[in-house]
Amino acid sequence: MEKVSADSFAELRPPARILLGPGPSNVHPRVMKAMLSPVLGHLDPDFVGVMEEIKKLLRIVFRTKNAITFPVSGTGSAGMEAALANLVEDGDEIVVGVAGAFGARIVDAAERQGARVHKVEAEWGRIIEPDRIAEALKAAKKPKLVAVVHAETSTGVHQPLEEISRLAHRAGALMVADAVTSLGCVPVEIDKWEIDACYSCTQKGIGAPPGLAPVTFSERAMDAVHKRKSKCRSWYLDLAMIEHYWGPERLYHHTAPITMNYALYEALRIVVEEGLEARWKRHRANAAALQAGLAAMGLEMAAEEGHRLPQLAAVLVPKGINDARVRDRLLKLFNMEVGAGLGPFKGKVWRIGLMGEGSRRENVMLVLNALEDILGAMGMEIARGRALAAADQAYVSLGLGAGEPRD
Amino acid sequence: MEKVSADSFAELRPPARILLGPGPSNVHPRVMKAMLSPVLGHLDPDFVGVMEEIKKLLRIVFRTKNAITFPVSGTGSAGMEAALANLVEDGDEIVVGVAGAFGARIVDAAERQGARVHKVEAEWGRIIEPDRIAEALKAAKKPKLVAVVHAETSTGVHQPLEEISRLAHRAGALMVADAVTSLGCVPVEIDKWEIDACYSCTQKGIGAPPGLAPVTFSERAMDAVHKRKSKCRSWYLDLAMIEHYWGPERLYHHTAPITMNYALYEALRIVVEEGLEARWKRHRANAAALQAGLAAMGLEMAAEEGHRLPQLAAVLVPKGINDARVRDRLLKLFNMEVGAGLGPFKGKVWRIGLMGEGSRRENVMLVLNALEDILGAMGMEIARGRALAAADQAYVSLGLGAGEPRD
Repeated sequence: MEKVSADSFAELRPPARILLGPGPSNVHPRVMKAMLSPVLGHLDPDFVGVMEEIKKLLRIVFRTKNAITFPVSGTGSAGMEAALANLVEDGDEIVVGVAGAFGARIVDAAERQGARVHKVEAEWGRIIEPDRIAEALKAAKKPKLVAVVHAETSTGVHQPLEEISRLAHRAGALMVADAVTSLGCVPVEIDKWEIDACYSCTQKGIGAPPGLAPVTFSERAMDAVHKRKSKCRSWYLDLAMIEHYWGPERLYHHTAPITMNYALYEALRIVVEEGLEARWKRHRANAAALQAGLAAMGLEMAAEEGHRLPQLAAVLVPKGINDARVRDRLLKLFNMEVGAGLGPFKGKVWRIGLMGEGSRRENVMLVLNALEDILGAMGMEIARGRALAAADQAYVSLGLGAGEPRD
Repeated sequence: MEKVSADSFAELRPPARILLGPGPSNVHPRVMKAMLSPVLGHLDPDFVGVMEEIKKLLRIVFRTKNAITFPVSGTGSAGMEAALANLVEDGDEIVVGVAGAFGARIVDAAERQGARVHKVEAEWGRIIEPDRIAEALKAAKKPKLVAVVHAETSTGVHQPLEEISRLAHRAGALMVADAVTSLGCVPVEIDKWEIDACYSCTQKGIGAPPGLAPVTFSERAMDAVHKRKSKCRSWYLDLAMIEHYWGPERLYHHTAPITMNYALYEALRIVVEEGLEARWKRHRANAAALQAGLAAMGLEMAAEEGHRLPQLAAVLVPKGINDARVRDRLLKLFNMEVGAGLGPFKGKVWRIGLMGEGSRRENVMLVLNALEDILGAMGMEIARGRALAAADQAYVSLGLGAGEPRD
């Protein structure tokens, strides 16, 4: 046993940071308050009522009529695993787009489920071209599904899905989309784009703490689940069982994370109150201002133009600047988190998120001003105030006003 | 799209129930308060500090020095899956004790991972006899592990583990224990009993909401993980990766449920402040009083004598009494949850939990008094007040005083 007494453990005092990384993003106080609701049993009629409301809200946010729409009891990656573990069987051929860490993660997770993966790779920072998916579909034998990341969190790329979905269906394959960093920030049109399986998280565009993975599965996807030759390898994520817990039968499967479901409910209520279109517009406006400001500082983006996510800017670290040092300064001077690069982008990009609650005009100003100060102090030639003026100008050209005067 | 407007979704108003089922149990206000702590990034140095403290606290509660001791980012069943998915490979022979729903769940989950399971079955309500495990180990070819449920939540049986662990090791197998309903209620002696892998939950003996699965793995178990011929089928639960996120390298794997980790931290702090021995004693005392009261009402237990869990009484529903009607009355008249029976015990037992925060003298009085009232009104011959007097007497004989006078 370690020699530690009860006194060694202090009361929690985590700082209230400005979260401008790739998620978690800041949480609305109403969501915090919802988490104080009394814990109920997982089969309590009152909790069952909350579950029903969550399903309705998720259908609104996913823009779908899919019956099987609910939060998986784990974080975003558990949603990914739920999609793959349920739809892939040993030997199934699948096509996966890989242009970043999260595409690569799908490959790894699918291979563990026995998939033979046809990878369609693109350079980090670029989209997956539909033509390349079409080629891979031709090369694959009876392709079971195509999986693509909608918002590649490692590169800031916004991947178009509609054309790829058409190609997948034409080849008789299911369309799977990773919407972990897109749901609640940009349009995710499950029914219109005919996405068969989609997974997301709670801590980015939705604005709750991390802990659940909203998912939705089309009838076609559920058919594939019901026609499996083998049981799903995962007991915990087996949709053939979970559908009867989240469905009208209310068959006990596992104990849902009650409090996180309260948080998700309240966060979704806020999303629906704002309205999806208004929310997407807000994300676009703040992104335009941020990107204008970053450009005014001479900073460049990792993602190709025309395919940049509004909720996540992957910014190239300028030559001679130490990535980690800047993030450390942001945290210690300004109590502000921005994300580091992953994999080949380690040390080479910062990831600035303006997601959900965090997509706010003041956050654009705060992060630009902080970067001006830090990069200037580190020797970059920064004309103080220019980034903020450029951001202001972006808001003006979007008809959103000049904001408060800076003098 | 469903036609629902933002106004259709009301503010959450779940009732504050007295939770006396098989979990979730009631949560201390300090734990609720901890969940209001600001959400941090999953790699934030301040959150990393909390992770380190949680590992220390869990080692105290699991009574272990195991380095790999942390909460899996899912509920209790995700802990089970983590143990099996990491320790089982295709074709491995394993021995599983089955005398209830949760033993059966292990079999199902392990077979999905490719295990050949030698089941050691016992009647529901009885323990698994070590002799029978010994026989199964002999019959198995190179048995990889033995898995047994420590607290069988479906029957209220308290399964002894030490002898089975010795047998497992003598046969060269790992010892796996399901402590979902035991941790924080009764002794779970990982190092002393040489348990190689153990999983639990947060919402029973620990006293936090559901959402995480504390687990611990011995060096021997981690050796098996590192020597796997194939990758763990689960990306989300792969210990070979997760150990580097929860370990000193802090390699990003997935986003931990930050808020639930705050809750777990505070709940564990409360456990350690009370002291494990005091906590076990409290559970035993309240169980003795409850069982004395139930016996005084003529109610019988499903679990064999000498092997009854203090934290969970599986009570046989008396002849002529409608199980569901009684639970419905308890909920509606007294705002009190008790659990229903599972599987073959459906309609045949109630499961009364006195777990963690919920193991309190007033809860014993509340549930006995409520049952006296309801069962009496349903036509059972109940001498009003006798159950409470018997409970009081049990406290007296434990040296805990007669309690408040009832007249």
